[in-house]
Amino acid sequence: MSRYVISLGGNALGKNATEQKELLKEVAKAIFPLIEANHDIVIVHGNGPQVGMINLAFSESTSTPMMPFAECGAMSQGYIGFHIQNAIYNIMQEKGFHRPISTIVSQVLVDVNDPAFQHPTKPIGSFYTKEEALELEKSQGYTMVEDAGRGYRRVVASPKPLDVIEKTSILSLLHDKQIVIAAGGGGIPVIEKDGHLYGVDAVIDKDHASAKMAEIIKADELIILTAVDYVYLNFNTPEQKTLKNTTLDELEGLLKENHFKKGSMLPKIEACMAFVKATKKPAVIASLEHAALAFKQQSGTIINYK
Amino acid sequence: MSRYVISLGGNALGKNATEQKELLKEVAKAIFPLIEANHDIVIVHGNGPQVGMINLAFSESTSTPMMPFAECGAMSQGYIGFHIQNAIYNIMQEKGFHRPISTIVSQVLVDVNDPAFQHPTKPIGSFYTKEEALELEKSQGYTMVEDAGRGYRRVVASPKPLDVIEKTSILSLLHDKQIVIAAGGGGIPVIEKDGHLYGVDAVIDKDHASAKMAEIIKADELIILTAVDYVYLNFNTPEQKTLKNTTLDELEGLLKENHFKKGSMLPKIEACMAFVKATKKPAVIASLEHAALAFKQQSGTIINYK
Repeated sequence: MSRYVISLGGNALGKNATEQKELLKEVAKAIFPLIEANHDIVIVHGNGPQVGMINLAFSESTSTPMMPFAECGAMSQGYIGFHIQNAIYNIMQEKGFHRPISTIVSQVLVDVNDPAFQHPTKPIGSFYTKEEALELEKSQGYTMVEDAGRGYRRVVASPKPLDVIEKTSILSLLHDKQIVIAAGGGGIPVIEKDGHLYGVDAVIDKDHASAKMAEIIKADELIILTAVDYVYLNFNTPEQKTLKNTTLDELEGLLKENHFKKGSMLPKIEACMAFVKATKKPAVIASLEHAALAFKQQSGTIINYK
Repeated sequence: MSRYVISLGGNALGKNATEQKELLKEVAKAIFPLIEANHDIVIVHGNGPQVGMINLAFSESTSTPMMPFAECGAMSQGYIGFHIQNAIYNIMQEKGFHRPISTIVSQVLVDVNDPAFQHPTKPIGSFYTKEEALELEKSQGYTMVEDAGRGYRRVVASPKPLDVIEKTSILSLLHDKQIVIAAGGGGIPVIEKDGHLYGVDAVIDKDHASAKMAEIIKADELIILTAVDYVYLNFNTPEQKTLKNTTLDELEGLLKENHFKKGSMLPKIEACMAFVKATKKPAVIASLEHAALAFKQQSGTIINYK
């Protein structure tokens, strides 16, 4: 019996409610072996396309009020959490093996002095003309940047996760052998000021949030499920090499050689390294398709402390 | 030490995120005495205006996909749950008294054969012209009705809540003395078919959901917080009479005399009666403003079994 944090890509969830429900049937099937083996499981999901969609709906709609990005993230946790807990409930019913499952709406603490707030880089929401962009900078205080000829977009900070505010609730449920969905989309980012928590418009990388979650709940393994079976060196070139087993030291060297793409494999590698460094436990990057094998460490890139 | 279910009106939450955060500071203050006294607390909130807003954003937006009403409800649970847990966390910080609090995204079971599905009555979303309404009936299978000269609106069913799917998670958290926000908006309505749960476009009355929740978790008292201090007979007439203490028998008689307004006081009375009948425990209808007194049964209408 081990304790796992599973990080699930927001791109694996589809573009609308119907697609998301279909895709999650496969996710539920993939995760079921861990459930059946009675392991402790926390599922952290991405929300990039989904929170973008919610944000877009509110900005395009003319009769609804402005909706802050943190609140859109909270909505995406309800939306995606509902579908995941529903899909896993249903597969358990099919298999005749039941464990309680639920979603905890999660705030994740970030540092108001995180340097990321000085250099927002994460594009969110719709495209605007230069004039509209200037107007939004003035009226809303947004930071707007040009996005490769497609127009102007708002960018928000991507600060590092420091704590999961609802961790005690998550631990209580794990203690009772329940499956938990939490820190969806990396969590609703909150900062602390005079002891109070305030939501901020930012995006916490969901792999970094998974790593922090895994550290906090003392997970035995962090599993990042993505679209590729392994981490590759020289990806998509004739020199492509599959990385099956690696260590912190080896990855440090590879990072210096800039092997991994920003916004794609790099944050996953960095998140795994943070978890492995903090806990000396292994992390795995594997494909959703081969999740069952990855749970047995028979597929995916395994990152060990030494 | 007692166990309470507190039902909170969606109209008390405001029209946008800023207003909601402000109003919830007052709600948090009102509920704090129960928290400090170490009682078990489950908070069920309404979501009428909020789920309407989310639904409206998606129907007005041109580039986002159609969003089913059940999913909009799930979003409202994330949105409102985040704000409630944040507000209560903050008041606890101020008072230097902390208990864990979190929101459980909740599915609530309804019967696919509930007669309510044959007679949908609950108006949701935007107003349409007659032509648009006919088109929506054809393309989406919606039931559209004319709304008092203001145009056509979709109506959905308001079936009775039968079970809270995530009850085991809620009970685990209560057992660990944590505060739980659950079944927001009456819960995401799901039907069971061949052992699987499916979300349906419907609205479960949040007071009825609170009563069912209170019954399931064996609450000692159901408290419905609303805009008025008491239940009144002949409300807003010279014969207005305050109902302070009452019983199931007395209420049965008053119901026959049609004393209470549909869509307003009637569902609250019926929800209280259902809880009191099932458990022989008391229910209270009181104002949010005098919640602290209501918790001590010094304000509000108390409904006893006998």
